[in-house]
Amino acid sequence: MKCKRCRRAEAAVELPSHHAAFCPDCFFVFFRRQVAEGIRKLRLLAPEDRVLVCVSGGKDSLVLWDVLIDEGYETEGLYIDLGIDGYSGRSKEKVLAYAASRGKTPIVIELAKEGIPIPEAARCVRMQECSICGTVKRYFFNRVAAEGKFTVVATGHNLDDETARLLGNLLHWQRGHLARQHPSLPGTDDGLVRKVKPLWRVSEVETAAYGFLKGIDYVTEECPMSEDATSLVYKEALSRIEDRMPGTRIVFYKGFLDPSNPLRKGPEAAGPADFAPATEDGAEAGAPGGTNVDAEEGGGSPQACASCGAPTYAETCSYCRMKERVGKARSLRAARGSR
Amino acid sequence: MKCKRCRRAEAAVELPSHHAAFCPDCFFVFFRRQVAEGIRKLRLLAPEDRVLVCVSGGKDSLVLWDVLIDEGYETEGLYIDLGIDGYSGRSKEKVLAYAASRGKTPIVIELAKEGIPIPEAARCVRMQECSICGTVKRYFFNRVAAEGKFTVVATGHNLDDETARLLGNLLHWQRGHLARQHPSLPGTDDGLVRKVKPLWRVSEVETAAYGFLKGIDYVTEECPMSEDATSLVYKEALSRIEDRMPGTRIVFYKGFLDPSNPLRKGPEAAGPADFAPATEDGAEAGAPGGTNVDAEEGGGSPQACASCGAPTYAETCSYCRMKERVGKARSLRAARGSR
Repeated sequence: MKCKRCRRAEAAVELPSHHAAFCPDCFFVFFRRQVAEGIRKLRLLAPEDRVLVCVSGGKDSLVLWDVLIDEGYETEGLYIDLGIDGYSGRSKEKVLAYAASRGKTPIVIELAKEGIPIPEAARCVRMQECSICGTVKRYFFNRVAAEGKFTVVATGHNLDDETARLLGNLLHWQRGHLARQHPSLPGTDDGLVRKVKPLWRVSEVETAAYGFLKGIDYVTEECPMSEDATSLVYKEALSRIEDRMPGTRIVFYKGFLDPSNPLRKGPEAAGPADFAPATEDGAEAGAPGGTNVDAEEGGGSPQACASCGAPTYAETCSYCRMKERVGKARSLRAARGSR
Repeated sequence: MKCKRCRRAEAAVELPSHHAAFCPDCFFVFFRRQVAEGIRKLRLLAPEDRVLVCVSGGKDSLVLWDVLIDEGYETEGLYIDLGIDGYSGRSKEKVLAYAASRGKTPIVIELAKEGIPIPEAARCVRMQECSICGTVKRYFFNRVAAEGKFTVVATGHNLDDETARLLGNLLHWQRGHLARQHPSLPGTDDGLVRKVKPLWRVSEVETAAYGFLKGIDYVTEECPMSEDATSLVYKEALSRIEDRMPGTRIVFYKGFLDPSNPLRKGPEAAGPADFAPATEDGAEAGAPGGTNVDAEEGGGSPQACASCGAPTYAETCSYCRMKERVGKARSLRAARGSR
C-alpha cells in the first residue's frame, strides 16, 4: 500500500481511525501535527514555557520529550528512579541514552537515596505500590518544577491512558474525578505547578510507531508493580471496541472534553466521597478546586507542609507522612534485627 | 459448595457480583426479589396495571413473563412474527409452548400478513434490518396495547442490554439518548402506552440461569439479522470488565440512574442532532419530550397519522411510510417480473 499523503513511498503505518496510511516521513509530520494540534486546541503550552518533562523510560514519555524538543520548546527531563529491582535500572539506562542523544542530562531523583524506594515503602506502610508511587511522583514533579523555576510539568499520557481512566471514572460515576479529568490541570500561586498531557490526541499504537520509526530506544516491559492495574482492564476493553469501530476512542474523549458536557461543569456537584486518591496514577489526583495539590483531606485553601513546605490541606503533606511512617517501620525492623 | 441462603442444598448458581451462591429454590427467591425490587424502586408497575409483555421466544422475555405471572400481575403476551426464515418459526413455537404451559394464548402479529416481513422490507427500502425492526416493533407495541386497553408495555431488556446501550451512548456522547435512557418510558394521553423494563437489575447470566432451572424452553440462537450489531461489541467489552471486577455493571447502571446524575437532567441540553433513531432496538427511540412517540421529525406535539391514526410528528407515521415504500417496491418488482 502506498502512503496516502505523499502517494510515492510505501506505507509503514496504517491508521484505521484516521482512514489513513503513511510512510515513515509522512507519519512523523502527521504525528507531530496531531500533538501540536492537541497543544494548541487546549492551550497546553506557550512558546515561553519552561517545560519539565517527566520521563519514565517508556515509549510515551520519551516520544513526548522528542516531539517537544523538535517543536522548539525549552525542556528538561525528570527521571524518578523508583528503586524497583532490574526494572528501574533498565529504565534509567534508556532515559540517559536518549537524553545524551539530544545533548541533554536529565534531572534524576533516586527514591532509595530519599529513603522511600517504592517496593520497600509499600511493604512498610502496607499500601498498594501504585498508590504510593502516585503520591511520591506528584510530590517530586511539583518540588523539582518549583525549585527549577519550570512553568509547567508535562507527562506522557496518551489517548489510550486518558480514555481508560475516563471509562473507569464513568463506570463508577466518580463525579469528582470526572469534573477534574483534563489534559491540563491548573497550577496555583502557592507552589503548585501546572500539569499538562500533550499526547492526549494520539493513541498508544501511534506513539509506539513514532518511537519505533524514530529509533528511540525505550523499555517495552510494563512496570512489574502495575501488572494487575485495573486501568489495563479498561484499556483492553476499549481496544476491543476500537478494533471493531476505529475512531471510537477519540470521539469518546473529545465528546467528554466538550465544554457543554454536563459532567465537566465543575466539581461542586461532587460529594467528598468522590475525592478518593487515584490509585494507578497519582499525577491525576487533585484537590476540589481543580488544582493538583495533595488532596487527601480536601476543603479550604492549602497551607505549607510543616516539614517540607509543600502545599497541603493537612499539617504535613502526604509525602512527608508516608516518609515518616517508612522511616519508623525501618527503625523498628532494624531494632528487631539487632536483638 | 453449599447454598449461601439455606445452607443445606448444593449451590447451583454462583453470583460473584452478589458474593453469593444459591441452590435452585433459593435462587428463584433471590431472582424474583431482584425483579420485584427493580419494579418497586422505579415504580414500574402497579397492582392494577394490565401488562402487555412483548415476547420474542428468547430467554429474557419468557422469563419476564414467567416472573410477572408468578408475581400476580395481569399479563398478556404479544409475539411479533418477523418473517425471518427458520428463526421466526422456531421462536414462535417456543412462545406458544410456554404460553400454553401457563394457560395463555399470546396475541400474534404476523409481519408477512401485514405486508412488511423484515428481510424483504429491508431489501425493498434499503435500510438495516435492525432499524426497520425497531420501527415496526414500536408501532405494534403501541397499537396492540392501545387496542387491548393495556396500561403498560413490558420488554425483557436485562442489565447487560441496558449497560451495553449506556456504554454506547456514553462513548458517542449521545446526549438525547442519555437523557431518555431509563427502565421506564412515560406514555402520553394521545395513544402512547408507557413502556417498562422490569429486568433492568438482573444480568443475562442470571436470567439464563432462571430460565434453565425453571425448565423454560427458549430459543438460544441470536436473531440472524443482528449478528453484527454494535451492541454485542459493547456487551462483550463490559463482560470482560465484569469478569475481572464483578458488580461493575450494576454500579454503572445504578449510578447512571441516580437522579443527581447531570446526564439525567432532561433532554433540553441535547441538540436535535442527538435524536438519531436507535438502530438496534427501536423500543428505546423516543421523542424530545421523553415519551416514546415515533420521533423522526421531533419537536412540538404529536398529531395523529393520516393513514393509521398513530401519534407522529409527521403527516404519516414512520411505520406507514415504510409500509408504503415496501408496497411500491413490491409492485415494481411484480411488474418487472411479469414483463
